[in-house]
Amino acid sequence: MDIVNLDHLSANPLLPEVKDAMINAIRADFGNPSSQHKLGDRASEALEKSRESVAQMINSESPKEVVFTSGGTESVNLAVKGVAWAKAEKGKHIVTSNIEHNAVLRSLRRLKMMDYKVTSVPVDSYGLVNPSDVAKAIKEDTVLVSIMHSNNEIGTIEPIEEIASITREKNVVFHVDAVDSVGVVPVDVQKLGVDLLSFASNPFYGPTGVGGLYVRRGTHLWPLLDGGVQESNRRAGTENLIGIIGMGVAAELAVKDMEGRTAHMKEMKETVLRELPNYIEHYIINGHPERSLPNLVSVSIKYIEGESLVLMLDDDNIAVSTRSACAAGALQASHVLLSIGRDFADAQGTLVITWGIENKKEDLFRFLKALREAVKTLREISPLYPKSAHA
Amino acid sequence: MDIVNLDHLSANPLLPEVKDAMINAIRADFGNPSSQHKLGDRASEALEKSRESVAQMINSESPKEVVFTSGGTESVNLAVKGVAWAKAEKGKHIVTSNIEHNAVLRSLRRLKMMDYKVTSVPVDSYGLVNPSDVAKAIKEDTVLVSIMHSNNEIGTIEPIEEIASITREKNVVFHVDAVDSVGVVPVDVQKLGVDLLSFASNPFYGPTGVGGLYVRRGTHLWPLLDGGVQESNRRAGTENLIGIIGMGVAAELAVKDMEGRTAHMKEMKETVLRELPNYIEHYIINGHPERSLPNLVSVSIKYIEGESLVLMLDDDNIAVSTRSACAAGALQASHVLLSIGRDFADAQGTLVITWGIENKKEDLFRFLKALREAVKTLREISPLYPKSAHA
Repeated sequence: MDIVNLDHLSANPLLPEVKDAMINAIRADFGNPSSQHKLGDRASEALEKSRESVAQMINSESPKEVVFTSGGTESVNLAVKGVAWAKAEKGKHIVTSNIEHNAVLRSLRRLKMMDYKVTSVPVDSYGLVNPSDVAKAIKEDTVLVSIMHSNNEIGTIEPIEEIASITREKNVVFHVDAVDSVGVVPVDVQKLGVDLLSFASNPFYGPTGVGGLYVRRGTHLWPLLDGGVQESNRRAGTENLIGIIGMGVAAELAVKDMEGRTAHMKEMKETVLRELPNYIEHYIINGHPERSLPNLVSVSIKYIEGESLVLMLDDDNIAVSTRSACAAGALQASHVLLSIGRDFADAQGTLVITWGIENKKEDLFRFLKALREAVKTLREISPLYPKSAHA
Repeated sequence: MDIVNLDHLSANPLLPEVKDAMINAIRADFGNPSSQHKLGDRASEALEKSRESVAQMINSESPKEVVFTSGGTESVNLAVKGVAWAKAEKGKHIVTSNIEHNAVLRSLRRLKMMDYKVTSVPVDSYGLVNPSDVAKAIKEDTVLVSIMHSNNEIGTIEPIEEIASITREKNVVFHVDAVDSVGVVPVDVQKLGVDLLSFASNPFYGPTGVGGLYVRRGTHLWPLLDGGVQESNRRAGTENLIGIIGMGVAAELAVKDMEGRTAHMKEMKETVLRELPNYIEHYIINGHPERSLPNLVSVSIKYIEGESLVLMLDDDNIAVSTRSACAAGALQASHVLLSIGRDFADAQGTLVITWGIENKKEDLFRFLKALREAVKTLREISPLYPKSAHA
């Protein structure tokens, strides 16, 4: 039986066009974009073509504002640490939110070990940051605000434009982790008014291990990787050209197909939300009902343990996740779910269901049926499940 | 006319087996190695298989000592900065050599901006570091020694084992930038006795944008990329699985074919060195005559400008380089050549000729003939070329 992939946030399959482009690139024997001879020229052209496609996707003013990286994590590290180090003489205070991805959280934890101070603003029960909290948190020595565009566990989309107008007024650099938004929902860096914006290729069906950082012209940051003069001295190292070519094609398709993809995603989401009560009871849907990613549902299922549920569904060839793959090894309750008010038990009983353009409604129904059986089995053996809660 | 690639140091073509493995990986729709379901298991197995191949190539005690990175530059940055930061309380002094790659040099320059001190030991006219200079440079607060295995511009191979016995005795972490050696000449981390060793996949015909860092068990360093728990918490971020699979296959072949490749490389080198005097005069061969990479010749050609020579040879469809591609945009005289005693003019007139397993002797003769004509033309218009030097 085919595997139903409802864990697209961990890994999206590559689009056929992306595969073809990467396979052609592998066969083309590209040189090194930095070389001065013909072999280098062809590579350099391919690199810059991808940069233009990516720049168009996020509507940056110039392709030069796009720095290629090895993925979302590197982009975030480059933005957060790069600005913190470059601005150390101005100040060492950073503002963030309680529900950021580990790439931001742990970059900031690292900076704390270097005497930086961090203020983390809370979120409401939907996971929304209040822009006025950000305004209040900014101090004389604040050099960076880092808030995510959308949350990777609950899908809530933050009020980035409003926060950007505050940071601009207060002359503080604003970084946005948009890894789970770029290529999925429209992201326009000029409209948002941000200074730095991190993204990765896989969320829009490009290869893993490739990403980028939008750096608004004039935004000063230290490179994370020092060495050669690649990427206009902002990121040293010979480029992953095959991956970058894949990302470029994926970006073009994301722009072209955004409307159709979004309609499909939204229909899938409506189906899950409408059908869930017919299959299980005692659950909570996490995240904002409207300001939210269309390809994700987070559901806290009471009286069960999410890890067990993932394994049981895996036996039925259905891939889902309890949370982001990056944190899967950690076995701690999600800081995101605790921040929006879930208790420890509910947080542990949470599934993140994420679908992609190739999923069909029948995948959802196969999942829902398997979920009903698995939840029933797990609750029967759960000491937490009260008899009064039985259906 | 086919392009003769004698600039392999900038970019090696992928081996057919590497291409096949990467194309199969692209078609296989791997998941995320960190996921807990079947899609993740297959990805995780492929990842660990590559790790074992790479570990065998450098003879590390355990595959766990191999951290995958986005390439040699990231490996070097992780090693140098990672140790410096982790050991900051013990001391902030680092020892290196005058002829390191820009990845090391500029990582150290960055650390100097964070109040670290660097002692750089000189090299002799062959580019060799004297181990006793390293011993003398190590002080109470020295936390790291970073010396390259082979030099990327002149090919000289450094006395790493001797330096390692010094660092071990003095209890200082020893990092070796072996980017241009691993997979090209035998590199055995246990025999060398080093703590950290950087390498990249492309020098042994794997893809660009992939590399690794050997981290001897017990060596403490801060990650450069914070975030997820990948790579045993030493390098966060979803892996470039397609690239890593390519590197794994390239590593297996490097081990299997090392002997045959080396014989071919050496024969090519002997041919160039023997034939050069029949084609040009007034030149100097740089680097050590024996302790040297077999796939590289550096030649300083008097009374010409190297960049012009590269462009003229490019017109003849011959790719060569004046120096490493990473520095190609910089247009400064090579610090390596100045360090071994070349003057500014000779340094500017230097070609680095690097060949690969697919090059044939006839490629060298095509190059030599084109070189003769180009040198003649350039010298005729050169104001530096003395009449008395005419042949």
